[in-house]
Amino acid sequence: MSINQLFSSELKVVNIGLQSFRDALEAVKTPVVHVDWKPSMEVAPDALHILSAHRKEIDKANQKAMKLILSGQPQLVGMERAVDVVPGLKNDMILHAGPPVTWERMCGPMRGAIVGALLYEGKARSPREAERLAASGAINYSPCHEHSAVGPMAGIMSPSMPVFILKNAEHGNYAYCTMNEGLGKVLRYGAFGPDVIQRLKWMETILYPTLKKALSKTGPIDLKNLIAQALHMGDEVHNRNRAATSLFYRTIAPAVVTTCKDTKDASDVLEFINHNDHFFLNLSMPASKVTLDAARNLRNSSIVVVMARNGTDFGVQLAGTGNDWFTGPAAVPDALYFPGFTKADANPDIGDSAITETNGLGGFAIAAAPAIVQFVGGQAADALNYTRQMYEITAAENAVFQIPSLNFRGTPTGIDVIKVVDKNILPFIDTGVAHRKPGVGQIGAGVLSAPAEPFQKAYEGLAKAMKS
Amino acid sequence: MSINQLFSSELKVVNIGLQSFRDALEAVKTPVVHVDWKPSMEVAPDALHILSAHRKEIDKANQKAMKLILSGQPQLVGMERAVDVVPGLKNDMILHAGPPVTWERMCGPMRGAIVGALLYEGKARSPREAERLAASGAINYSPCHEHSAVGPMAGIMSPSMPVFILKNAEHGNYAYCTMNEGLGKVLRYGAFGPDVIQRLKWMETILYPTLKKALSKTGPIDLKNLIAQALHMGDEVHNRNRAATSLFYRTIAPAVVTTCKDTKDASDVLEFINHNDHFFLNLSMPASKVTLDAARNLRNSSIVVVMARNGTDFGVQLAGTGNDWFTGPAAVPDALYFPGFTKADANPDIGDSAITETNGLGGFAIAAAPAIVQFVGGQAADALNYTRQMYEITAAENAVFQIPSLNFRGTPTGIDVIKVVDKNILPFIDTGVAHRKPGVGQIGAGVLSAPAEPFQKAYEGLAKAMKS
Repeated sequence: MSINQLFSSELKVVNIGLQSFRDALEAVKTPVVHVDWKPSMEVAPDALHILSAHRKEIDKANQKAMKLILSGQPQLVGMERAVDVVPGLKNDMILHAGPPVTWERMCGPMRGAIVGALLYEGKARSPREAERLAASGAINYSPCHEHSAVGPMAGIMSPSMPVFILKNAEHGNYAYCTMNEGLGKVLRYGAFGPDVIQRLKWMETILYPTLKKALSKTGPIDLKNLIAQALHMGDEVHNRNRAATSLFYRTIAPAVVTTCKDTKDASDVLEFINHNDHFFLNLSMPASKVTLDAARNLRNSSIVVVMARNGTDFGVQLAGTGNDWFTGPAAVPDALYFPGFTKADANPDIGDSAITETNGLGGFAIAAAPAIVQFVGGQAADALNYTRQMYEITAAENAVFQIPSLNFRGTPTGIDVIKVVDKNILPFIDTGVAHRKPGVGQIGAGVLSAPAEPFQKAYEGLAKAMKS
Repeated sequence: MSINQLFSSELKVVNIGLQSFRDALEAVKTPVVHVDWKPSMEVAPDALHILSAHRKEIDKANQKAMKLILSGQPQLVGMERAVDVVPGLKNDMILHAGPPVTWERMCGPMRGAIVGALLYEGKARSPREAERLAASGAINYSPCHEHSAVGPMAGIMSPSMPVFILKNAEHGNYAYCTMNEGLGKVLRYGAFGPDVIQRLKWMETILYPTLKKALSKTGPIDLKNLIAQALHMGDEVHNRNRAATSLFYRTIAPAVVTTCKDTKDASDVLEFINHNDHFFLNLSMPASKVTLDAARNLRNSSIVVVMARNGTDFGVQLAGTGNDWFTGPAAVPDALYFPGFTKADANPDIGDSAITETNGLGGFAIAAAPAIVQFVGGQAADALNYTRQMYEITAAENAVFQIPSLNFRGTPTGIDVIKVVDKNILPFIDTGVAHRKPGVGQIGAGVLSAPAEPFQKAYEGLAKAMKS
């Protein structure tokens, strides 16, 4: 490239380390990704040695992982009761968000949601009775992620709950998720009052059969296409789902009208979705899950296939480390708190919804949804910078999921734990905030970086797996 | 401002004249609006003298105009047959887009649409008979804009057509527009085949009564709020209406289900809207019209209240010049043509849809909808620059209509004809392209700048009005 060409082309500067040099460039608004240079994360020297020595095998495995992930075709194909379709879900079992956790170590909102689920299932008649049962050892707890499922916030899935069934039309695997209840006092934020249980019952008896019938008329709904459109419409499909919910609504409404005999039910169902801009979250999450699961159990791959939190621990799973969880304490998000609440009221980060970031959406695609950053006090330019930084730790760009304001660049996809450790840049995650006590519900929304520990452990775990 | 503050704040540079200086700034990506400096447009010296001498009165009138425009509250309040509500519309009359034009001077697509309207009204049994009637003098033609109405492309409104009724809840005035037929071979692009007429009949007998009943249940729909949301979702509500159509759909669907007795009709109506992302165009246009009309007949104001094209002439009206039209030849747009068509097939620019630009939307808000620019071969940055340039010729920013990628800056609103002439910057307009022959339909979509002549004449017209 001649000097002339250099100066007529768009300058892109990656500045490492010295903040003042970034400031100088920013004064003239050169797009600059300030890669706040730090030494790599600390990891065991032998792990560093093993992964360095096997870089070629890892790169090859990661290429395969990204091919599997980027070729995914998530479709919504139907609905059933959880116990009838979710693999391994038994009648005495409750699934939860994040890595494994015992009742004793569970956070308040997760306990609250389990109390609610036991009331909903008719296994207890009062919260006190439910709590006793929950702690008795008679209920088995298991992570959603170990059952091809995901759940936002507490992520509680009990046997009778209806679930969306998603199929990866390219690779044949399935994923499952409950329906979104809306905002305010809801089970997933740990609330369990009579209104919460009543809503869940309505969802089971009216919403579920109505949508199930409508889906049998529409046939499979292509969620990849729908998410791609939503990214052109200001969503990142984690904390903002207004466009995706609208597009889903447009797709399903005529079929609801045709297949639902009861006019009031049809109208109530449409109003319920219309009044909940987050309805699509419980589709974008399993769409991400079903996409990423295609790359599971891929020897030597350092690509992250799960990031999930149970409100106590933050857990990571890699394509190359099978069903192992790598965990560390979950952090309390910096958030915009609703009036009357502060960070002191907040539960540590919770929910499987970081599966969207794992799939290059959510915080990774926040440049597509600057309204979220504005909501928590930032500027549109901050959103661009957050997304730009995530290209540093990902293995590929998604040609289908594009960000208009980055001139339709593909979303940064496929977190490579080696890049995370080497560059010491942590994944950026959008999140809702639950009150730390059971029964209260949502108290805010915000953004945060993942904790380092699970990634350090995952790095070492991969080295161990490659040695064996 | 100290030097330090200057360099720590974001540089905004307006470069006038020398291209090479812009290139230097662009090389380091300073946001720069290159105001391709040219001498002012030529206008009669006495006009220049009068308007310069009365700048204070003009500024005062323009402030009042902008207050009236920005405070507008466009609401969809109902539907009726055109002849029953549109002021001055008689049974022997057909309304059309743009400034006044005789049958003899009408372009192909407008003639085609009139032939279609006469067939639709049952006033002719064949296209030939319709054409004879159209040319006979028995039909009176009048611009939509002279009847508080607007119409996209040919903009044909005949007496039996159902229309949306919009009310400006702040100022009490009304506006009217037909419903959008969808894409392809449609009346507004000059097609008049049996399928076109059949669709219009279905719209009259099924779509209209169904939506009318639903609207009586929803009550007035706040279109200002809906447009504001759509601008956060990738629309500029002229050439892109996907989000606004979705939001309108979500609002109306539950009421359609509740009020429509016939399940098939309800389903057909929802499918019709679902399959037409442009459905909202025929609401964003009258929303703009009803907003701008509040500033009509405001002595001394140089604010543009109408830009409209009839496919032959481009016409402008000012707040300060009553019902006078200032016209010049309409240009053929640079466009992306559908396969098999070229610019040689294209009709000159046509339609009242430039009312959206007049209201700070459409091409003026194209930074909110970079997908449109990409569609015609540009980059996301081009969209930002088009919008940035429109701030140069407008009197205000709309606090409600915001552009996320410009850090939620308000849309450039209120074209000041004095700025247009002084700076020699012409309004930027999004547009569809009709085939120049009647009966064919749409052949492309694109963007263009308004012609200079109507603005020069409007400038002189204002001077004349102020002298009298």
